[in-house]
Amino acid sequence: MSLEVTPQTMSFDEPLPMRSGSSLPAYSLTYETYGTLNERRDNAVLVCHALNASHHVAGVYAGQPKSEGWWDNMIGPGKPVDTDRFFVIGINNLGSCFGSTGPMHVNPETGRVWGADFPVVTVEDWVDAQARLLDALGIDKLAAVMGGSLGGMQALSWTLQYPDRVRHAVVVASAPNLTAENIAFNEVARRAIVTDPDFHGGHFYEHGVLPKRGLRIARMIGHITYLSDDVMNEKFGRELRHAAAEGDAYRYSTQDVEFQIESYLRHQGDKFSEYFDANTYLLITRALDYFDPARAFGGKLSAALAAAQAAFLIVSFSTDWRFSPKRSREIVHALLDNRRRVSYAEIDAPHGHDAFLLDDVRYLGVVRAYFEGIAKELMQ
Amino acid sequence: MSLEVTPQTMSFDEPLPMRSGSSLPAYSLTYETYGTLNERRDNAVLVCHALNASHHVAGVYAGQPKSEGWWDNMIGPGKPVDTDRFFVIGINNLGSCFGSTGPMHVNPETGRVWGADFPVVTVEDWVDAQARLLDALGIDKLAAVMGGSLGGMQALSWTLQYPDRVRHAVVVASAPNLTAENIAFNEVARRAIVTDPDFHGGHFYEHGVLPKRGLRIARMIGHITYLSDDVMNEKFGRELRHAAAEGDAYRYSTQDVEFQIESYLRHQGDKFSEYFDANTYLLITRALDYFDPARAFGGKLSAALAAAQAAFLIVSFSTDWRFSPKRSREIVHALLDNRRRVSYAEIDAPHGHDAFLLDDVRYLGVVRAYFEGIAKELMQ
Repeated sequence: MSLEVTPQTMSFDEPLPMRSGSSLPAYSLTYETYGTLNERRDNAVLVCHALNASHHVAGVYAGQPKSEGWWDNMIGPGKPVDTDRFFVIGINNLGSCFGSTGPMHVNPETGRVWGADFPVVTVEDWVDAQARLLDALGIDKLAAVMGGSLGGMQALSWTLQYPDRVRHAVVVASAPNLTAENIAFNEVARRAIVTDPDFHGGHFYEHGVLPKRGLRIARMIGHITYLSDDVMNEKFGRELRHAAAEGDAYRYSTQDVEFQIESYLRHQGDKFSEYFDANTYLLITRALDYFDPARAFGGKLSAALAAAQAAFLIVSFSTDWRFSPKRSREIVHALLDNRRRVSYAEIDAPHGHDAFLLDDVRYLGVVRAYFEGIAKELMQ
Repeated sequence: MSLEVTPQTMSFDEPLPMRSGSSLPAYSLTYETYGTLNERRDNAVLVCHALNASHHVAGVYAGQPKSEGWWDNMIGPGKPVDTDRFFVIGINNLGSCFGSTGPMHVNPETGRVWGADFPVVTVEDWVDAQARLLDALGIDKLAAVMGGSLGGMQALSWTLQYPDRVRHAVVVASAPNLTAENIAFNEVARRAIVTDPDFHGGHFYEHGVLPKRGLRIARMIGHITYLSDDVMNEKFGRELRHAAAEGDAYRYSTQDVEFQIESYLRHQGDKFSEYFDANTYLLITRALDYFDPARAFGGKLSAALAAAQAAFLIVSFSTDWRFSPKRSREIVHALLDNRRRVSYAEIDAPHGHDAFLLDDVRYLGVVRAYFEGIAKELMQ
């Protein structure tokens, strides 16, 4: 049984200063909560989302039994992050397209849709905004902050920006910054969007069109990097799309679908282009590119992480080539250099980066055990 | 000193039947030769090219000292494939855009430019066309056929289609077929081209435009897969484009170049879109997708390679994730199952798939030693 949940929205009038030097004059954050905040207000867990996810982390919406949140296998009553014990919060990030203030909204200072003029947001800005929501909810200190991929970067950044507001940080399938290859994939996706004639310099809303071609390509590229080579071969291999009907014969076409993997990718691209905002895609991939806490410390991650006071659970997956285990180990080593409490699990899973969203007994078991430890700590 | 060379063209009037069921009514092949065919006509080496290369394998054109062929470090007087001993032939493949009949030429049966109606070409069709050119040159049996990447697939296919016309096959950085991930990258590139409004269903020539947006994206994606993660980090890392001028500060922009790797990729994409034909890109990536000699043998590569009579040199590179060493080892094992003569070198090189074009002392040494062996064999 999944929880039935309702999203909420909170508006903020005080401007949010941002790392780019801009500031958001006023904004609102859409969020959901699961479970109950206890009297000591110390059982809150903040879940940060990655590129294309949202505040809808767990549970379902009334009358929509298939609307499970993106981490519903992880979070809920009796689940690894047990909402019978913890008060879990999901927040849609600024610049996203699922409710919180983003490029499709109106800039109150100009009366026009932000579009491409939405200020460049960083992981640090998101964390600042999340902290203001926690202030408003009366939560001084989080039992834990957690996230996978870009969400893991936010969890890590929380421990550096607000070290005394975080007991535990759970950083899954993440990295201390992007590699050149990671940036390269983001850049190709952005170029596909920006050079789509329907993008109109990011002001496509005014033209009544959407740069769907570019979004499709961006999503197809992304999807390849979420999966491992092995799992793609296992799921699709060289199987033909119409093999059943046509006796496994090649059709010999350069533009029609021939292989199953092509069909799958086109479908993923089409779906994505229907619901995702193009400016949001640019903003969020840039937030990924820019994140680099070691940068202010001459590239020394150990020096950057000296500020952290939290205890950490770091998890990586063996076949994740987007954020490989090597990158997680860099975080682990930098924390150990600072004599921080770190647990590290490197899960031997075949699914690549996507593994952080999937059911893997060992992975879910590790997170469950870690949160049971947190629950015990809170009872002391 | 590089050889001075001149491309030649040979026309064929007899139709070429193709694996797709179509046939090319008439066609011409552009080629170059280096060195001298000996009296026994047994010292010929055919070099097959990969996606974006051509017949211009070695040497330079008169008055153009920087026009070196794409494998000029490998082939020439005194080089690993020594043109003082061997008669080397480079042929531009059908469907390409560097001289041989391709989609930008006129279909003699309709009087219109082929465009997207150019018949789908396969590795096997290319080999058939290459064999006809050798017939015309009076070469019955090759001392060796060689190629890297897609060129290696052609070399392998030669040993299966014309087993008694090949003494040696040199297959570098190649694979017995594409994986689902390989096909996926090709498909994204094709979708970028086909959905570019300037593609006009492949008949852009008539509209006086070129689908440059799509070609740029295709090339950027390709380029990422040619390099290793490590070499990208070493060459570009997270270096900023304007760091020198601006004191290493982020510019905070979603559309402008921020990192060096972005600048590099955009430049590669721009250059490529100026000279490469969009329909050729579709045709050649499809030839890659379709190549699969084991397919007719229920996926059993050993059964497929039973036809080969040649001796083989197989070379792979440790950081090549596009055509990984594992794929080369599949070929080696299948040849050993058939008790064929096989030498295998797995070169520990940092450069990824691109390594097959670069100077690596061990790699070039292995090829040199192998061709010295062939030269000795021919003197017996």
